[in-house]
Amino acid sequence: MTTLLPESPRDVRERIRSGAWTRPTAGLAPGRVQANLVSLPREQAFDFLLFCQRNPRPCPLIEVMEPGVPEPVATAPGADIRTDLPSYNVYREGVLEATVPDVIDYWRDDLVTFLLGCSFTFETALASAGVPLHHVEAERNVAMYKTNVQTAPAGVFAGPLVVSMRPVPREQVVKAVQVTSRFPNAHGAPVHVGEPEALGIRDLASPDYGDPPVILDGETPLFWACGVTPQAVAVASKPPFMITHAPGHMFITDLRDEDIAAL
Amino acid sequence: MTTLLPESPRDVRERIRSGAWTRPTAGLAPGRVQANLVSLPREQAFDFLLFCQRNPRPCPLIEVMEPGVPEPVATAPGADIRTDLPSYNVYREGVLEATVPDVIDYWRDDLVTFLLGCSFTFETALASAGVPLHHVEAERNVAMYKTNVQTAPAGVFAGPLVVSMRPVPREQVVKAVQVTSRFPNAHGAPVHVGEPEALGIRDLASPDYGDPPVILDGETPLFWACGVTPQAVAVASKPPFMITHAPGHMFITDLRDEDIAAL
Repeated sequence: MTTLLPESPRDVRERIRSGAWTRPTAGLAPGRVQANLVSLPREQAFDFLLFCQRNPRPCPLIEVMEPGVPEPVATAPGADIRTDLPSYNVYREGVLEATVPDVIDYWRDDLVTFLLGCSFTFETALASAGVPLHHVEAERNVAMYKTNVQTAPAGVFAGPLVVSMRPVPREQVVKAVQVTSRFPNAHGAPVHVGEPEALGIRDLASPDYGDPPVILDGETPLFWACGVTPQAVAVASKPPFMITHAPGHMFITDLRDEDIAAL
Repeated sequence: MTTLLPESPRDVRERIRSGAWTRPTAGLAPGRVQANLVSLPREQAFDFLLFCQRNPRPCPLIEVMEPGVPEPVATAPGADIRTDLPSYNVYREGVLEATVPDVIDYWRDDLVTFLLGCSFTFETALASAGVPLHHVEAERNVAMYKTNVQTAPAGVFAGPLVVSMRPVPREQVVKAVQVTSRFPNAHGAPVHVGEPEALGIRDLASPDYGDPPVILDGETPLFWACGVTPQAVAVASKPPFMITHAPGHMFITDLRDEDIAAL
């Protein structure tokens, strides 16, 4: 059987919910916005919302749900964030307690859920503009680094900015800046172009998260604010309880990439 | 004595703090971002922050301050929002209790202060682009209307969108959309172009707030989300205590208009 239409976001979420898909979500429901997940008790939610407002590059808010509500009514009506991601991390006091396929048993009525934009959106745009993505070609995870840049603290939350790095051919650097600038709700423009030392990164070959990068001659490293930042900051800040997606296992919304584009 | 340099934002705030300036702030510290003010007890702050996140057109967040902190450390270090606006409104249970020149005696250690972008920013841009502003020429307040469009509710906050209207010569409508689109943190692009009926507005000559508009032949009404919305919504939602600026008497930040521009 051949299909001409891509699978709908609802169908993909159903497949994940049923347990038929347990792997990372890269490439699923192409053109739809995927999101990082953070669920925190209401007691910490104001501070975390404020943290996101003050750090929009690493933490672009796509949707924030009312306490205890598991349905993202604005971006994926009918979905349930407790079951519709392939894999979750559960933290207590900043320590990873479990990685689980759903969080039904961990759910609490005081949990506030945050959906944050994800680099998949701007990677699609880069690819459409002809900018090569070596980590995608090599089927690796993107390389990510802790920096010496501090996020703007908010209440109990503080910590370092995490960046992802993509090497870009010198003649396409301006294009890569322009293309990703259109998606401020998916981390937006790079936070830095060029020398890793400027961000306190000593060795590009040894990332703090993800896989070592492929960098070709004539390519410049470009650094974008990364969706791992809120997890790293939350872990550093040790909130009593927190649920997140497992890296790469994102929540798929109904939004189209263009819905969150700037002009 | 003649001055070639415009007065600094700090100097203007000092003049306001001393009581030497008590009138509206339009035209002061040209090119600097002015802001709407809302201070609410921490108990309602999460809901209001969520309301702003869900309604970025009427409620673009410029800065949110920690509970009890009167200094906007990000946008106006050294300032004090309790004294640096020319006039304040104090509400209890949604009812206006007092209009006062400072709020030192009303301050509480649990108040969270929100600074929201203001249309003065995009009006400067419209004027620079040659789009006439009749209400400014006539030294009137802009005309504002309650609409039949509901804001996205959040917790205890819900209510109608309020819009401001500026008539624009037909041949400049596209230019006006383009120019204001660059300032999403100052209400951004119009929410509607043309027929007032589409927003449930029956009579342009009878605005709900501000002064009746001047509309010339060949002009199209353009409607922008308005900074009065959060006050109208907050009043409708009757939070126990709330401080705002008095309309037109804004807080002047150190930010330049270009600091909050999109690309």
